[in-house]
Amino acid sequence: MIVSQKANVTVIETGHVTSAEGFYAGGVHCGLRRKKLDFGWIYSDVPAAAAGVYTQNTFQAAPLKVTQDSIASSGKIQAIVTNSANANACTGKIGMENAEIMRSQAAGQMGIEPKHTAILSTGLIGVQLPMATIEKGIQSINVHADEPESFEQAILTTDTVTKHTAVQTEVDGKTITIGGAAKGSGMIHPNMATMLAYMTTDAAVDQAALHRLLKEATDHTYNMITVDGDSSTNDTVLALANGKQGNTALDESHPDWDSFKAAFFLVSELLAKKIARDGEGATKLIEVSVTGAASSTSARRVAKAVISSNLVKTAVYGADPNWGRVVCAVGYSEEPVDPDTVDVYLGDIQVVEDGLPSDFSEAEGTAYLEQEQVKVIVDLKQGEAEATAWGCDLTYDYVKINASYRT
Amino acid sequence: MIVSQKANVTVIETGHVTSAEGFYAGGVHCGLRRKKLDFGWIYSDVPAAAAGVYTQNTFQAAPLKVTQDSIASSGKIQAIVTNSANANACTGKIGMENAEIMRSQAAGQMGIEPKHTAILSTGLIGVQLPMATIEKGIQSINVHADEPESFEQAILTTDTVTKHTAVQTEVDGKTITIGGAAKGSGMIHPNMATMLAYMTTDAAVDQAALHRLLKEATDHTYNMITVDGDSSTNDTVLALANGKQGNTALDESHPDWDSFKAAFFLVSELLAKKIARDGEGATKLIEVSVTGAASSTSARRVAKAVISSNLVKTAVYGADPNWGRVVCAVGYSEEPVDPDTVDVYLGDIQVVEDGLPSDFSEAEGTAYLEQEQVKVIVDLKQGEAEATAWGCDLTYDYVKINASYRT
Repeated sequence: MIVSQKANVTVIETGHVTSAEGFYAGGVHCGLRRKKLDFGWIYSDVPAAAAGVYTQNTFQAAPLKVTQDSIASSGKIQAIVTNSANANACTGKIGMENAEIMRSQAAGQMGIEPKHTAILSTGLIGVQLPMATIEKGIQSINVHADEPESFEQAILTTDTVTKHTAVQTEVDGKTITIGGAAKGSGMIHPNMATMLAYMTTDAAVDQAALHRLLKEATDHTYNMITVDGDSSTNDTVLALANGKQGNTALDESHPDWDSFKAAFFLVSELLAKKIARDGEGATKLIEVSVTGAASSTSARRVAKAVISSNLVKTAVYGADPNWGRVVCAVGYSEEPVDPDTVDVYLGDIQVVEDGLPSDFSEAEGTAYLEQEQVKVIVDLKQGEAEATAWGCDLTYDYVKINASYRT
Repeated sequence: MIVSQKANVTVIETGHVTSAEGFYAGGVHCGLRRKKLDFGWIYSDVPAAAAGVYTQNTFQAAPLKVTQDSIASSGKIQAIVTNSANANACTGKIGMENAEIMRSQAAGQMGIEPKHTAILSTGLIGVQLPMATIEKGIQSINVHADEPESFEQAILTTDTVTKHTAVQTEVDGKTITIGGAAKGSGMIHPNMATMLAYMTTDAAVDQAALHRLLKEATDHTYNMITVDGDSSTNDTVLALANGKQGNTALDESHPDWDSFKAAFFLVSELLAKKIARDGEGATKLIEVSVTGAASSTSARRVAKAVISSNLVKTAVYGADPNWGRVVCAVGYSEEPVDPDTVDVYLGDIQVVEDGLPSDFSEAEGTAYLEQEQVKVIVDLKQGEAEATAWGCDLTYDYVKINASYRT
């Protein structure tokens, strides 16, 4: 189903992480969780140029280190193996050994090189991986399984829905596809999250250019979402480009780079928004756009301050057009904002003009906030820079989910 | 009732903001709120050396500017007038004019100089003060009223209890008293809060030394509490020293400075903890102590990261000894922490040793967290610096209160 077109980019809303040619994926239940799928893999026909972006948390989990090692040593990844239910984080030397065993056993099962194998884990922190169970998962890998839904299920933790999409654009006159899948629901904050995202394309992309693009796209999308302000130990975004379409390898000098970049950003944004909307306990997606900022950094910081505010999030939950909380968050963003020039809008309804309340209808404000997607626009009127951040409302269910995640 | 003694400091748990000699206080209902008291004052027999510390929020409310002007112009304050229900913040030029009218009318009513008059407001943002109602409050001021409980009631917003204390120590062989009162429940975060605190002493204190002391005490107490991460537009701590005990004016060179400083810090800490414990919807006071940090700044940042984590706060609410969330927050504090040396304790129960889970009883951990006061200790084992932060659990009621504050 094609839902929209933008800058020569076609969105395939029902697309999957395997929509690009030469990618396969599957998932199984190996026993880490009671019933749900808990072990998945993505496989590419051929080793693909690979790039990764990882959490800034000091306590980086073991599998991230193993994946970074694979990408650093070869620049290419052919398969990504992921388990849920256990993050293999804060597990010390044994955790590192287990991550390495997981990589080498998975590579052996698939008949590929360990240096072409990435592994990711998500779930509880501080519990050693039950390796016999992981081994059962590895033995179930069928590299030519065409079951992306199973993969997309297997990577979930507290998520309520799978998150996947695909887009297409033209490169060298050929239709290339970028597919993606992601998970993430709690412990989600700028500078990554307990968030895993996988992006796959059949375009040929120069590895260094792919890394630069992934970093830039992450800064504008995955790093602009927040659920609860907690950056996790395991956040990772991986991008694989297997070149199956036979285009001239893309980099910034390629005439179709802009189209490819737009497509790549769009997949990132769509997945990031799906994560924000599925935030733990969320009933609404909140989008905060900051315009007229003095700098891009300033715009991003103000947007993040507003989207992260528990008071803004509860006001949206309660459909209360309490613009004071938006203004307050702008004020404590530590950016040099001029209180006397700030405008704030809820959708099309102006609620603040030059730092003072506008004459708006509270009832209309409430009606607007009762929608499932809500936009807050903050115009600083200081410059030209802009940024957008995404998050969700803070609800009873967030508390419920997190007061009893384990017990 | 004397409850404890510490470094020659005696705590009078039932003490008030008027416990020091020569201070009077009262409060009335003038009509800003439906029924509750909403207008209060503190009055000193004589102009008192005064110091203030204010919110870092860019959108600083009008009354804070007027109070800063009073202290800057005279260094002395004789009365502080406060209304609740309306913060006079984001109210532009008219708000500034109203704040100035409130100061001059109150000064006139009390027969003191406007430059010796401080005013504070707390409540809704972005609504002009109803000046006729404020005027009714001003006309009710009775400077020799001895009704501190009424004052302590009148300053509250979503608070569920009044917050007050007093301590005594010896200066020049005389017993001096420091009393205090505070309010604050939501929009509470390091770098102040929708938090007002008032400290009064009958000791004579050099005005510059009082300012330095207030700043230092605030950094270690009021700025180390968080309820929801939102710093408000109106946060203020004011300290008045009226010298009624006739001691030689205190500064850092006075032989009894250390006792006075200990007493002053203690009042600040007691009030700060009362604010944290009364956080919106809170059922528990959480204290996070960081030891073994490389620097004081590092200790403070790590403590703030842990106390601010929604996931830690919900885990404590659910009495879930989920130490992974503590470690995760330490990791994203952006401080150079070594994951392999971190120890974590819940009270006396060690749950993490050298970054790895200890062999502790989950049942004991849960039993500990079911208490009304909970301590989390993080030992970084990197140096000698320490810091403590206070906060509360995140509960259904926080969401309830904030989803419907106005509507």
